[in-house]
Formats: sequence, structure tokens, C-alpha cells
Amino acid sequence: MAAEDGGGIDVRADGAAALDWLARYLDGLRDYPVLSRVEPGEIRAALPADPPDEPEPFAAVLEDLDRVLLPGTTHWQSPRYFAYFASTASEPGILAELLAAGLNQVGILWRASPALQELEEVTVDWLRQLLGLPDGLVGHIEDSASTSTLAALAAARDAAPGRRVVVASEHAHSSVDKACRILELDLRKTPVDDTFRLRADALDLDGACAAVATIGTTSTSSVDPVPAIVDACERAGTWLHVDAAYAGSASVCPELRDRFVGWERADSIVVNPHKWLATPMDCSVLWTRRVEDFRRTFSLVPEYLRSPDDALNLSELSVPLGRRFRALKLWAVLRCYGRTGLQERIREHVRLAQLFAGWVRDEPGWEVSAPVPFSLVCFRLDAPDETNEALLERVNASGEIFVSHTKLHDRFVLRLAIGNFRTTEDDVRLAWDVLRREARRLT
Amino acid sequence: MAAEDGGGIDVRADGAAALDWLARYLDGLRDYPVLSRVEPGEIRAALPADPPDEPEPFAAVLEDLDRVLLPGTTHWQSPRYFAYFASTASEPGILAELLAAGLNQVGILWRASPALQELEEVTVDWLRQLLGLPDGLVGHIEDSASTSTLAALAAARDAAPGRRVVVASEHAHSSVDKACRILELDLRKTPVDDTFRLRADALDLDGACAAVATIGTTSTSSVDPVPAIVDACERAGTWLHVDAAYAGSASVCPELRDRFVGWERADSIVVNPHKWLATPMDCSVLWTRRVEDFRRTFSLVPEYLRSPDDALNLSELSVPLGRRFRALKLWAVLRCYGRTGLQERIREHVRLAQLFAGWVRDEPGWEVSAPVPFSLVCFRLDAPDETNEALLERVNASGEIFVSHTKLHDRFVLRLAIGNFRTTEDDVRLAWDVLRREARRLT
Repeated sequence: MAAEDGGGIDVRADGAAALDWLARYLDGLRDYPVLSRVEPGEIRAALPADPPDEPEPFAAVLEDLDRVLLPGTTHWQSPRYFAYFASTASEPGILAELLAAGLNQVGILWRASPALQELEEVTVDWLRQLLGLPDGLVGHIEDSASTSTLAALAAARDAAPGRRVVVASEHAHSSVDKACRILELDLRKTPVDDTFRLRADALDLDGACAAVATIGTTSTSSVDPVPAIVDACERAGTWLHVDAAYAGSASVCPELRDRFVGWERADSIVVNPHKWLATPMDCSVLWTRRVEDFRRTFSLVPEYLRSPDDALNLSELSVPLGRRFRALKLWAVLRCYGRTGLQERIREHVRLAQLFAGWVRDEPGWEVSAPVPFSLVCFRLDAPDETNEALLERVNASGEIFVSHTKLHDRFVLRLAIGNFRTTEDDVRLAWDVLRREARRLT
Repeated sequence: MAAEDGGGIDVRADGAAALDWLARYLDGLRDYPVLSRVEPGEIRAALPADPPDEPEPFAAVLEDLDRVLLPGTTHWQSPRYFAYFASTASEPGILAELLAAGLNQVGILWRASPALQELEEVTVDWLRQLLGLPDGLVGHIEDSASTSTLAALAAARDAAPGRRVVVASEHAHSSVDKACRILELDLRKTPVDDTFRLRADALDLDGACAAVATIGTTSTSSVDPVPAIVDACERAGTWLHVDAAYAGSASVCPELRDRFVGWERADSIVVNPHKWLATPMDCSVLWTRRVEDFRRTFSLVPEYLRSPDDALNLSELSVPLGRRFRALKLWAVLRCYGRTGLQERIREHVRLAQLFAGWVRDEPGWEVSAPVPFSLVCFRLDAPDETNEALLERVNASGEIFVSHTKLHDRFVLRLAIGNFRTTEDDVRLAWDVLRREARRLT
């Protein structure tokens, strides 16, 4: 019985090979086509349909990673990835994930891992301070903003019996729609103004258990008028959830905090360090000042989970019982960059976005389609939708960059999202060169 | 602007240090007290209350891991961890997590990572075959059984409008209670027989959108009578969800499949490879034959997520939009152990549980409190509850092993859960020695 053979793996030797693979991957990120070029089903067809009967060496896994999986990889780590919201798995975050996997803490309750729980509490409190949020907001980590928003809306629903409406702008993220569907709440979509901000004058909180204000919407990164919304919510006794999943990290820079005025009065706030704060997937931080409302919805401690201590368990605040040691990567990131290091990167991304927006504005035949409060630029050719759509496809097919799209005022618009810590001005300039080159070829 | 400096980290040099730390940790697992000895708040107090302003080297993180966090760590990886359900982060799983963190795929939709999605589809299909489940069950990975069960019950609810009842045994996992609370469904608890199996004769499916049958309950690993339950569900048009989160992995051994008869007819099944299949947290596999019902509940594709391909996106089947590249670790585990390697370990755990149960049965003053169909043994001293509770505390305080408890027929019972791939017969024998030693000291 070879119970300790680790499946034939030597963690030192095979680990060194994995680390070497990774270092080479990160060094060569600009050499890959950013968007995978495979067709649906192609990767599946390249994999055996049946499971292996006999053990294989880890080297075989590494080999197939290169041979089979890399062609099907869209390189989110590439400095030339500008689609959706760019992200970064930074080196400290990656290495912390290695350690977290090895420690394999399962945070079902405090005593199952005091280190997991208390590091999570401390680390999200560090982040709260870094973002300039006040005392009294208690945080924990969820897997995604979708789950965070679901949890907040469930707590809000249960805190206001009889109220079955959630109010959000028509530009709120689809996760709000999804949460309402799961929770059987009615979503009342409020119109936006010309710059895609919720129209406070159209806000109707009648029967609303919750409102969602977004700081940094997905389509354009627009900022809802949080001060007016929070005033209205306080008058109506409505729970305000602030979705700052993407943009929240920018509040680490004091000069950008004018975009966040009012969020400190929210009942709950979600910010995803796995988007713009160099933390590998997954890490979504959810703060609330209404911990007892979360407990009412989520706390269940059956006999087999009782323990002699009377510590609060983080699982009493969220859907899953078990939790990974996600705090370790956030802790490593916050320490290895520090406040100044994070500010420097975010500031640079905001500068690059302004630079790119300026190039677009100055170029005849192109237009910037929305304000640029953070690091996302919406833009288009002054041409029919079909032309813009064709441009997007050509640009992405080139493999040199990857950008995505949205629709604004019913028109097809391209989105360039800056946010990868490895992106430089040269990468943004390359994006602009590729876009103009493909536009010329099209027209 | 040092955008490429990786937060001052050198992935090769710092990575080698992290790997070395990890290898030493795994080599020395038996040297740690299994259950952390800190008091609530102790780890928090040992960490700075304020975030760092300036970057620190990764070496400082590693140093604090030893100095601050290890004392607060309950060693789930220890071969002498027998609490709740034991688990293993195997070497292939750990190294795959390193690679997944580095690739940082964010599976929001197919094109965002064809490799992530199709490897997930193939790997969970491999697992389906390994467990002897039929064609037609389509799987994906969730973070936890809590989320899997929530998703299944949400789909079941939406598939049967007007039915608001979920039926499960009184020994079903608390995640069923939690899901019902979130989904505002009424949980009808069905009594169990003397061996803690749902009493089929007491099953009442009136108004039930779903029933949950458990193969391997948390308290005792009892097996509900699935054939009778699935018959009743089919007659009533009720969705059957099978919770085999812990025990499902045992179906890799053909000689254990008599415990699973009938599960192949369920509408959905959850099995957690992060429990008994050597996969690091988190990895919960959810299969269903009712994919369209899942889509109806969870599919939402807003404009900014539309793409030219018409591939199904796995995010259309679950709560979160973004997903980690969890399939990579499951793939590595299935390949590096192979069918035979996994069978060998599971079989050994079942043998060790029988061995331990035999020792308990043969020892005057001790009793086995429930049948042992898998690798969990429930047992107690023939003594008052207070004595058993004191025994548990003394044993865990020794640091030599960690076991947990439950209540059966209102009596305090100890649980010894075998499931760590590094556990040997010597470790189980040590557990028995420690238990008897502490019992002698008590009485």
C-alpha cells in the first residue's frame, strides 16, 4: 500500500518542473494569440473520451498542458488582454495559491482553521482601510461578485419581509438579474442618463427591500449617483448594495475617491480583488454593516459542527459551508505590493486609459462613446454597426490583442479594458495600431 | 514604472522557496498538533491591524506563515486528521493549482477559455465513468456541495411551479436546510430508521418539487433507500437530488456499488472530489440529466457577454458567472492516480474503518454506534455523555489526532473519519491507542 507516494509524484522534482513551466509561460505571454483560436469541441476532441486506468507521471500532464490545452487558452494574463475586465494573477498571488493548496484548509468553522478565518478577517479589513472605507464594515471573501450580490440580496430580502422588489439601473450587472431570479424577487430597472448613470429622479423604491448602485458598470464603468441613492434608501428603509466589483480597487488612490462618495453609507459593498488588484481567481470581498442580518439568513450550526468555542464562523455569513484559504493570496498581494505599489499600478492604468481615449478622440472617423472615469474606454468607428462588429472580429482574430464589446444607445461599441499589471504603454499603443490597421483594411 | 516587476517577486527564486516550504511541510505533517491550539482572536492579535504601506519581500510572507499562521492551522493534511470528513490535497492536485493560478483563466463563457470549459466537461465525464454512472448525466464543477445543492433545488423549484416543499431525511446535511431557507422552500424532514436511513414508508411527496436522498450522511455515513425513493419520485413527478458529497467517490470501487443502487436514476447528483478523491479545496461535481432546467434558472447572456460562437457556457448552469480552472486539478488527480490507484486508496480506507470498528467492538466498555458502510466509524464509551464529551476534548487537546462528534438517539457519539490518502494503518492504530489512553485517564 503506497499511501504516501503522492500518486507517484515527487513534490520537489515535479514541483520544480511545474514552476519552470510557469516561469516560461509568464516570460512568454506576449508570444501567444490572446484569444484562443479553437472551434467549439476542438479541445474536447483532443482529449481521451475515457478516463485513465493506470497512473501516469505528472510530466504527462505538463506535456498535455502544452500540447492540448494551451491552444484552447485565452490568455487572461497577457498584457494585451483588454476584453471584459482585464485581471492579473500576480506572482505573490500565484505562489500564495500554491501554499493554500498545500495547506488545504477547509474553513467550515472557526476551529477548523483559525488561521484561515482570522487572516481573512484581518486582510479584508486591511483592504477596507486601503480603500478609505469606514470602521463598522465587516468583510469576508466570496468566490465571485455574483455570489456576493446574491448573498446581500438574500439578507436584504429576509430583513424586510413583504418587500419583494429590487431596484437597479438598466446598466446593472446581469448578476443582479440572476440573483433576483434565484431569490424570486422582482427587479425594477431604472433608466439611465446620457452617460449611463442611474437617473436618481426616476428612482422608485416603493416595496423595495434592496437597491443596487453600481460604481463602475460593466458596459461603460459609469458611476451611479450614490449620494442621492443612499439618501433615498435611508428614507425608504431600503438596503443599499453597492456593486464596485471592478472599480472598487481604484479607491486605493485618494485622488480617485470622488467617484466613490456615498458608498461608505451602503449596507453592503462588493469589490473583486481578482479583477483589478492582482489577485488570482477567485476573490470577491463583501463588506456589510449588517452582520446580524447575514447571520439570520445564512447561519445554521447543526450538532456535528458545534464546538466548545463560541467563535463566529464565517460560513454563517455565506452560502457555502466550506471555504478555501483565499485570504492567503490577498494577504500576499497586499504585502508584496503595499499601498504605494498598488496605487502606482492603478494610477498608471487610469493614465493609460486617458491616453488611449485621447488618441481615439483625436483620430478622424473614431469616437469615444462614454466617459472614462477609470481604466475602461468605450469607442467606435463612426460607421455602421456591422463595420464595428467586423472590426472587432478582425482585431481579435489577429491574436495580437483581445477586446470585447457592448451596445450603447443601441449601437455596437468596442471596449478596451486596461487592468493587467503587466500592461505597459507600448501594449496600449500596439492595441491602437492594430485597431487602426484593421479599420483601414475594412474601409 | 515597474509594471512587470511582479510586486518585487521573482517567480523562479521565490517560487523555489515556496516549493521548498511546502515540501518540508508535507514531509513533517505528523509533527504538528492536528487541531490548532490557539484561542479565538489570537491569530488576529498577532497580525498588524493596519495594512502595509510599502512593498515587502515574499520571504516576509513565508516567514509569517511559519511564525504567525501555522500555530492557527488545523492540519487537514495530517494523516492523523479524522474529524468531519478527512480530505487530501494530493501532490498532483497541489501542483495543478499552481498552474491554474498562473494561467488565471476566468471561465465566464466558452470563448473566455475553451480549455477550461472543455477540460471541465471531459474531466467530470471521466469521473462519471469511473463512478459507474450512466450516459446522459452532464456535469460541471461548483465550489461546494452547499452550492451544488442550492443550484439543484433552485432548478427543481423552477421546474415545478406551485410546489414549494423539499423532502429529505432528518439526517440530511444542513446545506439542504440552508438552500431551502435561501429559496424560501419548506423542508419536510422525514424520520429515519434505527440505522439512520430515511424511512421510505414515511415518505410524503405531496407538493414536493424535490426530494434529497443522501448516500453517506454526515453524522453516520448512512445510506438512504434510494431505489424506493426514486420510485416514489418518479410516480410523483418530483426531482430527486442525490447528495453523495462524501461517499460518492467510493463508487470507483465496483465492490462498493451496492451502496449506490438507484442513484443512476436521479435528476441530479453531487459528489465532492475535494473530500475523498485527493483533490484540493474546492471541487464539487454536480451532474444532471436536466440541463435545460438548469439553463432556465441560471442562463442569462447580456449583450456584453455575447460572442460569435453559439457554444453553451458553463456559467449558464450555475450561480457564479466567473469560474476558476478547477478542472485542471481534478484532471491531474485522475491521471496521476488512475482508476486503479484511486480504487486502491478508497479500498484501503474502507478496510481501515472496518479494522478500527472491530477494535472498538472487541473492547469492553466501548461500542460502535452505527453501521460502517464506508470509512466513517461512529463510536462511544459506554458512559454518560459528559464522559464522552470530555474524552473528545482530551483526545483533541493532545494534538496527536483530531476527531469530531455528533449526536445519535440524543447521545453524544465520537466520529473517526478516514479519508486522507497519507493515512496508514499505523495512524489509525495510534488513534485507537490515544482514545483508550485518554479514556483510562478519565475513568
